[in-house]
Amino acid sequence: MVAAPSKPQTLETLCINSIRFLSIDAVEKAKSGHPGLPMGAAPMAFVLFDQFLKFNPKNPKWVDRDRFVLSAGHGCMLQYSLLHLTGYDSVTIEDIKQFRQWGSSTPGHPENFETDGVEVTTGPLGQGVGNAVGLAIAEAHLAARFNKPGHNIVDHYTYVILGDGCNMEGIASEAASLGGHLKLGKLIMMYDSNSISIDGSTDLAFTEDVGKRYEAYGWHVVKVADGNEDLDAIAKALAEAKSVTDKPSLIVVTTTIGYGSPKKAGTAGVHGAALGGDEVAATRANLGWEYEPFDVPADALSRFRQAIDKGAKAEAEWNERFAAYEKAYPAEAAEFKRIMAGELPEGWEKALEPVAQKETSTRLLSEACLNALSPVLPEFLGGSADLAHSNMTYVKGLADFQYGSYEGRNFRFGVREHGMGAIMNGMALHGGTIPYGATFLVFADYMRGAMRLSALAEIGALYILTHDSVMLGEDGPTHQPVETIASLRVIPNSLTIRPADANETVAAYQVAIANRKRPSFLAFTRQNVKNLAGTSIEGAKKGGYIVVDAPNPELIIIATGSELALAVKAAEILAAEGKAVRVVSMPSQELYNEQSDEYKESVLPVSVKKRVSVEAGSTFGWHKYVGSEGAVIGMDTFGASAPGPVVYEKFGFTVDNVVATSRKVLG
Amino acid sequence: MVAAPSKPQTLETLCINSIRFLSIDAVEKAKSGHPGLPMGAAPMAFVLFDQFLKFNPKNPKWVDRDRFVLSAGHGCMLQYSLLHLTGYDSVTIEDIKQFRQWGSSTPGHPENFETDGVEVTTGPLGQGVGNAVGLAIAEAHLAARFNKPGHNIVDHYTYVILGDGCNMEGIASEAASLGGHLKLGKLIMMYDSNSISIDGSTDLAFTEDVGKRYEAYGWHVVKVADGNEDLDAIAKALAEAKSVTDKPSLIVVTTTIGYGSPKKAGTAGVHGAALGGDEVAATRANLGWEYEPFDVPADALSRFRQAIDKGAKAEAEWNERFAAYEKAYPAEAAEFKRIMAGELPEGWEKALEPVAQKETSTRLLSEACLNALSPVLPEFLGGSADLAHSNMTYVKGLADFQYGSYEGRNFRFGVREHGMGAIMNGMALHGGTIPYGATFLVFADYMRGAMRLSALAEIGALYILTHDSVMLGEDGPTHQPVETIASLRVIPNSLTIRPADANETVAAYQVAIANRKRPSFLAFTRQNVKNLAGTSIEGAKKGGYIVVDAPNPELIIIATGSELALAVKAAEILAAEGKAVRVVSMPSQELYNEQSDEYKESVLPVSVKKRVSVEAGSTFGWHKYVGSEGAVIGMDTFGASAPGPVVYEKFGFTVDNVVATSRKVLG
Repeated sequence: MVAAPSKPQTLETLCINSIRFLSIDAVEKAKSGHPGLPMGAAPMAFVLFDQFLKFNPKNPKWVDRDRFVLSAGHGCMLQYSLLHLTGYDSVTIEDIKQFRQWGSSTPGHPENFETDGVEVTTGPLGQGVGNAVGLAIAEAHLAARFNKPGHNIVDHYTYVILGDGCNMEGIASEAASLGGHLKLGKLIMMYDSNSISIDGSTDLAFTEDVGKRYEAYGWHVVKVADGNEDLDAIAKALAEAKSVTDKPSLIVVTTTIGYGSPKKAGTAGVHGAALGGDEVAATRANLGWEYEPFDVPADALSRFRQAIDKGAKAEAEWNERFAAYEKAYPAEAAEFKRIMAGELPEGWEKALEPVAQKETSTRLLSEACLNALSPVLPEFLGGSADLAHSNMTYVKGLADFQYGSYEGRNFRFGVREHGMGAIMNGMALHGGTIPYGATFLVFADYMRGAMRLSALAEIGALYILTHDSVMLGEDGPTHQPVETIASLRVIPNSLTIRPADANETVAAYQVAIANRKRPSFLAFTRQNVKNLAGTSIEGAKKGGYIVVDAPNPELIIIATGSELALAVKAAEILAAEGKAVRVVSMPSQELYNEQSDEYKESVLPVSVKKRVSVEAGSTFGWHKYVGSEGAVIGMDTFGASAPGPVVYEKFGFTVDNVVATSRKVLG
Repeated sequence: MVAAPSKPQTLETLCINSIRFLSIDAVEKAKSGHPGLPMGAAPMAFVLFDQFLKFNPKNPKWVDRDRFVLSAGHGCMLQYSLLHLTGYDSVTIEDIKQFRQWGSSTPGHPENFETDGVEVTTGPLGQGVGNAVGLAIAEAHLAARFNKPGHNIVDHYTYVILGDGCNMEGIASEAASLGGHLKLGKLIMMYDSNSISIDGSTDLAFTEDVGKRYEAYGWHVVKVADGNEDLDAIAKALAEAKSVTDKPSLIVVTTTIGYGSPKKAGTAGVHGAALGGDEVAATRANLGWEYEPFDVPADALSRFRQAIDKGAKAEAEWNERFAAYEKAYPAEAAEFKRIMAGELPEGWEKALEPVAQKETSTRLLSEACLNALSPVLPEFLGGSADLAHSNMTYVKGLADFQYGSYEGRNFRFGVREHGMGAIMNGMALHGGTIPYGATFLVFADYMRGAMRLSALAEIGALYILTHDSVMLGEDGPTHQPVETIASLRVIPNSLTIRPADANETVAAYQVAIANRKRPSFLAFTRQNVKNLAGTSIEGAKKGGYIVVDAPNPELIIIATGSELALAVKAAEILAAEGKAVRVVSMPSQELYNEQSDEYKESVLPVSVKKRVSVEAGSTFGWHKYVGSEGAVIGMDTFGASAPGPVVYEKFGFTVDNVVATSRKVLG
């Protein structure tokens, strides 16, 4: 048991306990949630929000605000309490009473798309660290791009509170290693080191020296021995962290989870469950808290609400500074406003059209698209997880994004796929950037946790996924995607696009860039493809469209990507035999599903029941389009190591097989 | 350029160059592969295989062999060269000439299921580190379980060669942190630190102090300054690593990638592409290599082939020791032989039957299965990624697996899902254990890279995935699986099983344990379920079966897991209206797909075209079973935070909706 505080209740203590009891009471009312972290981390969060964090509660989207990430998202009542107490309109006391209820702005984990003031969606552990690295990268990049001597219009910090769970996750390791490499001096993380995770003491599984590990990554590490009581030490550590400008900082804050609860403090019992009525009462007594549930003492509220004036003043000052910038640099200011508003420049999509004339692999067509977009979309930037020259993502003529050249737009993510995804999410949610990240399609598996969050958090990131079938060849089944395309199609609010040729690759980029509220997963070939007569940019943007047709078709062959060529050739052979065959290219099932019923009937008429699908991947999901009387050509086993064309043929991706299967379906 | 070696060619150098040139020549012939690592890491690999590694080339499966893992799997020619040179039958010189060709035993990355002598399947970076931690865990566990005073029958090391790429991956961080925590003294990793990854210098993205990071994890770290030439230093480092018994060891070996190539050594150009004819010739000249492609000097071969006698002798000695053990401890010896042969004890599945009488959530039924299996399958062991008391995976009465209690069977993986998966893969491939690992279903996304390898590498690991739908409730969409089940069904050579009640949970475990060559992904509810009248263990093992029937059914409702209860109730209502309705439970599409056509026709007759599927998840993939005239009930959006029953109802998982949809389908 933690003894009741012996010292007098200061205003600061009152404020901190206000956070604690809003959290306790909300979890208690919901009978669900995680009170332990808010109780233990309230002091560090209070010091941060009270003395350091630059924000305007009445304008949560002010572009030069500091970004705050609660990577330990299960402790979201900490954040909701602070948003409410400091005066955000997005979290009223009624919202707090509706914690974890249907339709409330206070869901079980922080969701940027639900609650103003929440920067990123966390809960899946470690993601917030990656997001924060991305936020800090975006700040550094925009500062390098837009600031001018005497005009610091981009100048804010990224603060994080993370816990033991985040520090156990590999994604956080990846992001922290890259953050150290990039010397992101304005990234400051407070590690709520309470030695408890859900299963109990961290002694069970996590006994490493975390501070030393971050030092190895190149971080500045500060320690706060007593994060429960020593507010001065917390403030001093934050000030020290800010003073180190060429390294990100980790502040290791030793705390007690569930601080104040006589029976449960310092135990896993307070991690993820309501305290229970008796223990809530005991905690009230222990901390000398005399207020009713959800009551906030007026003194505390008034102290917190100083944030409103302070924030308004800070933003007003910034507005003045921005006005001066605008006067001195009108073009830059206009550009800055455009990208921070997430608006695309007029006619950007036309830059892609010349790419439609090229003929090569779709990964090289993708490279041509990146190069074409680069001058017209300066906010478009990214790179690869150490496969730049396989993914073809390096844009010539642009600098690398590195310490000393933060204006660079070619990113070197290292072999850190999961970190890359989370970093992209942070970059995009910062505003002012449209990020892309690349790896082999099969390694989408490594970053799926982040891809899902791109979709859930409504982030228009581009995932460039090359080597999209067994045609990659010799690297073998560990590197050959089979089920990957299908596995991505199932993610809600996302687009999976697998173009067949140059027209369709252009369409893929036009769609991906235009979709600012959902991620695009772009699958490109390693091998060369031919441009096909019937394809079109406009058709491909509908997700599925007719490429070859015949009057009153008796058979429809549906294909994607490199297999469209097989379908077209098979149709020629069948047509020569007098069969009426239609070929439908379906680069994106999702886009197709969104078309009108009339359009869909025009492409896949209900009356034409003889259908064949061809895709060099899992057949899973294709029965929706071929129906009960159709056939699916694909592979539901793993691939094999051999030259691509050999593997392709061995697994049945041949014109002959498409013809033979079609004949069988025709009966 | 690296200067030609000035010192005389020793036999050791001849051996090392034999590895290098077999690798160079094989990659050159295939015009595909990664020569850089074999050329740089040949010295350390030679010292390891020559002086330290305990193995018998003529019996690659000898149970007490040391395990060798090439985590940097792209450098597989290093391993194939060693397997050939030391006399394994699995890799002949012809096989090396067939590197990366269809049907060869020398695929583009090491595959345990293709090539004897390859312990685990690597290539996807970082996995090998997790596998190695698993191999070392299995050794430690079996040693603790079986060794007796004077009888060390389990006593071998796990050696790893890994590269920069592995060390950038989060999965390796997770596994290394746990390996340090567990003080796995018999795990020794050699880090081929060549400062080059595919995109170029590690200065681009990876400038951390790796040795210091491993020290932070609790590892013993040794450095070898000149890994190109200083064989003594390598041997000394290995000896030192072996002498430290309470910590795993990392030997940081500084090398030159592509050592010996005048133009390409030390560059990314030699990482993943053939040297090219001119550079091969220049490398031959530079290293004084006078032999034709694929020729191995007789002196070198004879030195390598000493491994055959040495291995035979080592195994013979062990056989003697085992015979003595068998005499002293016949029961233990028989048990050891059984589990190392991967045989299940007679009648083990009967232990599960009493669980069929219980009625609760399927996660608690899963717990009952774990407890029931625990005494009859002593090789069955595992744990959770810090969610033991949510996943219900802690088996009472068993000790924790920790340093000092390696005989324990309750594992504490920490919040390290991806590491957990890779560790399970290593444990299983070691032999003697059947591992399980648990987390929330939605976090399968975090470990999908390892799950795919379980499937590809034919590993019968059990993934226990609880909280299997939006019914998990308040935690919200970050924690609610929607698309996860579908995303797992697409993985080849795996089983996804979502049982509806006690009978089906028993069936799920019977199937999962019996399937020793493919992983099972078991999805369990958080909430209570009712046992349903029509379910059966035998039926569920067929993947899909009739639970409610009517003569000449006009409608079939297909459901899985918790939604089977909705289907059964809907059928009752429809039957009361005079409709002939069949209900099919389909806990596993994969198992159902494997049934005979006759059986499938008996369950889902082609003639009954009116069908409805119900599953609280993505509808993706269900059209295969409901056909063109059917309807799918599911959800293709993310969930929301609220109490489970509220979310469930809001998304349409109600008897009313099933009835209404059925009526619509019936027309």
